[in-house]
Amino acid sequence: MSGGAREPGRSVTSKVLAILGAFDAARPQLTLTELAARSGVPLSTAHRLVGELEEWQALSRSPDGRLRVGPRLWELGQLAPNRLRELAHPWLQELFGSTGENVHLAVRDGLEVLYVDKVYGRRAVPIVSRIGGRLPMHPTGVGKALLAYEPDWFVQSYLARKLERPTPHTITEPGRLARELAAVRAQGYALTYEEMTPGSCSAAAPVLVDGRPVAALGIVLSSRRARELPRLVEPLRAAATGIAAAYGS
Amino acid sequence: MSGGAREPGRSVTSKVLAILGAFDAARPQLTLTELAARSGVPLSTAHRLVGELEEWQALSRSPDGRLRVGPRLWELGQLAPNRLRELAHPWLQELFGSTGENVHLAVRDGLEVLYVDKVYGRRAVPIVSRIGGRLPMHPTGVGKALLAYEPDWFVQSYLARKLERPTPHTITEPGRLARELAAVRAQGYALTYEEMTPGSCSAAAPVLVDGRPVAALGIVLSSRRARELPRLVEPLRAAATGIAAAYGS
Repeated sequence: MSGGAREPGRSVTSKVLAILGAFDAARPQLTLTELAARSGVPLSTAHRLVGELEEWQALSRSPDGRLRVGPRLWELGQLAPNRLRELAHPWLQELFGSTGENVHLAVRDGLEVLYVDKVYGRRAVPIVSRIGGRLPMHPTGVGKALLAYEPDWFVQSYLARKLERPTPHTITEPGRLARELAAVRAQGYALTYEEMTPGSCSAAAPVLVDGRPVAALGIVLSSRRARELPRLVEPLRAAATGIAAAYGS
Repeated sequence: MSGGAREPGRSVTSKVLAILGAFDAARPQLTLTELAARSGVPLSTAHRLVGELEEWQALSRSPDGRLRVGPRLWELGQLAPNRLRELAHPWLQELFGSTGENVHLAVRDGLEVLYVDKVYGRRAVPIVSRIGGRLPMHPTGVGKALLAYEPDWFVQSYLARKLERPTPHTITEPGRLARELAAVRAQGYALTYEEMTPGSCSAAAPVLVDGRPVAALGIVLSSRRARELPRLVEPLRAAATGIAAAYGS
């Protein structure tokens, strides 16, 4: 490998990837010093690599001079195939059209949900999910809908960790969560009330293909309108079933 | 720089970027040999770099073994800020909701339009635009709407080239195109009929901020329904004006 003499064995490619990987939703903008520290790449090397990445528009500068992901990486990322997102999108669109509410689609990745699509309008309640964003599973509707259909060993190891508590309403007690997941399986959908974000409640249904939860479809509204959730469950489940049928075929 | 001995002066970073840049909408999947040829990176080097990129999920393999952009780059690309797309999206959503037609937003990049957002449903006519995709300006509604507001020197140099002709309806004669662009400026919107894709027609309006065309909003429908286009022009222009006001504020 062609890594610098100071770090034998670490390739230039791995340094470039460490620099790119230093950005995430919590830190979408970084100074060069922060970037070097987060990537573990020496400052002088980071300076040189960042120059090349900027020239290619893989990185760009915000008005205050901090670095961020550039337009070329957005454009490149759009080439990544995602059959699920493509076939599900029209269903999300239709569910949004018939309900007027925020709709999103998520998959499980590790111990988190990764949001792969979202449809929202001008009057929608602001929601915390972001396309390409990640959240923990237990406080989100889509996370519960996915977790409920994972094998026991997975659920038990998920519940055995210390669980984040983003709001006072977040359920983190393992026994209570386990009972709730059993209820989700029994009824075929999950409901949350201000467990992820104060002011928001949600319903979510799994997209089940051969019994396996390949994704979850969620709908989010203001918690002042929580009592409208039940009437949204049927269109939500119908869309999730439609996505499953399209995905499995 | 730490480029290989066979190519003094070419850095490893530039090779990694050349490999990533070898993918585009026309060639989203490549064999290793194709990738090496398109990037100009020697096969053995490409093999090693691709291994590192695959491990990081910057690249992935399709079922037939060809390489393609991986999920990690999609996720990273979603961090690229795009104020225009974010503020415009609810307007696209609303225009789609009130018309039920395919709606998309594009900006000019070089001599092409780059589609930054798109809203479509289950019953929409299949359209050629793709988020992150590029098309020439003169055969597309959004391209004409943008071109009409560019400075004369730009338009003249655009028209002086040999222009692509994707369909027999594409207008490529410079004098006729120049007259059409004048009409677009006079009426404030562009119409196309099967100029990009047989079977589709479109209307598009520029998003003008201080007289500068920062984007164009387009609506596409089946050319069998071309006579419905005129009634879509007013909601289209209203949405473009709404986006301009939000962007300029």
